Amino acid sequence: MPRIITSHSNETIKRIRSLREKKFRQREGLFLAEGMRIVAEAVEAGAVPQMLVYAEDARGHPLLAKLVAQCEAAGGDVIETSRDILHKITEKDNPQALVGVFPVEALALDSIDRAASFVWIVCQSLKDPGNLGTILRTADAVGAGGVILLDQSCDPFSVEAVRASMGALFTQRVVQSDGAAFFEWLRQGPGMLVGASLNTDHDYQAVSYDAPTFLFMGNEQSGLPPDYEAACDVLVKIPMAGKADSLNVAVSCAVLLYEVFNQRRRA
Amino acid sequence: MPRIITSHSNETIKRIRSLREKKFRQREGLFLAEGMRIVAEAVEAGAVPQMLVYAEDARGHPLLAKLVAQCEAAGGDVIETSRDILHKITEKDNPQALVGVFPVEALALDSIDRAASFVWIVCQSLKDPGNLGTILRTADAVGAGGVILLDQSCDPFSVEAVRASMGALFTQRVVQSDGAAFFEWLRQGPGMLVGASLNTDHDYQAVSYDAPTFLFMGNEQSGLPPDYEAACDVLVKIPMAGKADSLNVAVSCAVLLYEVFNQRRRA
Repeated sequence: MPRIITSHSNETIKRIRSLREKKFRQREGLFLAEGMRIVAEAVEAGAVPQMLVYAEDARGHPLLAKLVAQCEAAGGDVIETSRDILHKITEKDNPQALVGVFPVEALALDSIDRAASFVWIVCQSLKDPGNLGTILRTADAVGAGGVILLDQSCDPFSVEAVRASMGALFTQRVVQSDGAAFFEWLRQGPGMLVGASLNTDHDYQAVSYDAPTFLFMGNEQSGLPPDYEAACDVLVKIPMAGKADSLNVAVSCAVLLYEVFNQRRRA
Repeated sequence: MPRIITSHSNETIKRIRSLREKKFRQREGLFLAEGMRIVAEAVEAGAVPQMLVYAEDARGHPLLAKLVAQCEAAGGDVIETSRDILHKITEKDNPQALVGVFPVEALALDSIDRAASFVWIVCQSLKDPGNLGTILRTADAVGAGGVILLDQSCDPFSVEAVRASMGALFTQRVVQSDGAAFFEWLRQGPGMLVGASLNTDHDYQAVSYDAPTFLFMGNEQSGLPPDYEAACDVLVKIPMAGKADSLNVAVSCAVLLYEVFNQRRRA
């Protein structure tokens, strides 16, 4: 049976809300997924929520009932509360009827089976969680294996990243590592490292992508560092015909992922 | 000579800050562009700032000096202030050394020369200004003509849209209209209306795009309304292989734009 919480100052609500901040996510090993659709995708992908919090007015929703039953069957905690209190957890401009609390799954490079997919994404010092979430969503769409985050990249378990991923955080493998460890791991097996770069004339459509391809995306402002570019098997450029000298990193990644995917569809 | 403002309660600063809100942008016919890079792109594209506000510690910056000279030569107002006061205008998490105030240029459909480009983007009730800005940035990159916003779309002159466009707002034609007026205008001349849709099996790479192509993108949640889909010459789908059932709208738009652009490059 769901617990009912009616107090704004309830400690459990405060604790859940604290997971919006990275330091509390790290301390608790938990993160938030907001919204019926994303929580449903998570559960479908096999993730087990440790806690579900829903608004009392959503009680009759059939999908909610199913999620609540699944959470309780797995020993999770279910809380019914007011929409007002729920809005203390979610943001006012993004009101949701359901919030799930999930355990952070920290994967190491060695846990990756590189043969499990024809394409993987590697991001270096990616700063914007919205970009990361969008990259995860596109990665899922083409059937990529996952995203490897290097160096000072943003937190994939932030509310913004989870939201922009539309649930793909739960279907993609996500690894946090650094450049040195990644290069060492990569060269222990097959893999074509393809750097997205403005420092080449090599058209991205002129390259034949071999599986597994590792698409290497740089930081939003500065792109890949020179030594990271030097470590790539090939650098590719997306041609541009306008005044702009660069694309959004999630857009670049999508254009490249669809080229790799389209080549595979044709083969 | 720049005016120097040292008071936090200065009326000009308050007025500039008010342009973060749509009602004040509409009342004043002015909007904000934040950051040296975007203001420089704007000026290069021929836009004339009515006002520039910069942080005193940026005074020696060569690009700033050039922009200040151009603004003053065009009769604009230049203000030097503290970084603290400038942060009252820009957001704390996006500190910039320069803010430009530009006149809103409201374009009508009839002002569009459809032959000026091989591709245009049409958005129906696009809600997220970040998505709109990203679409503008990609549109510029492929050499599109501009973006036509229909129905309840977000404001292209919002700070978020301008920022995400990285200056492309100033190089692309931007029109705000509605469905009925757009369809009437479209059919008065040549144009292939291509709807991005999940309600078709027509692969986006199986279509030959004729210039001018009008790429029709629907709302983030619900896609194009059925009667809008029915008005299209063709519906196309971007294939997906994962668990996700849709892509981010700016990502979809980019994948489609690059297909149209790539076909043109090959021709």
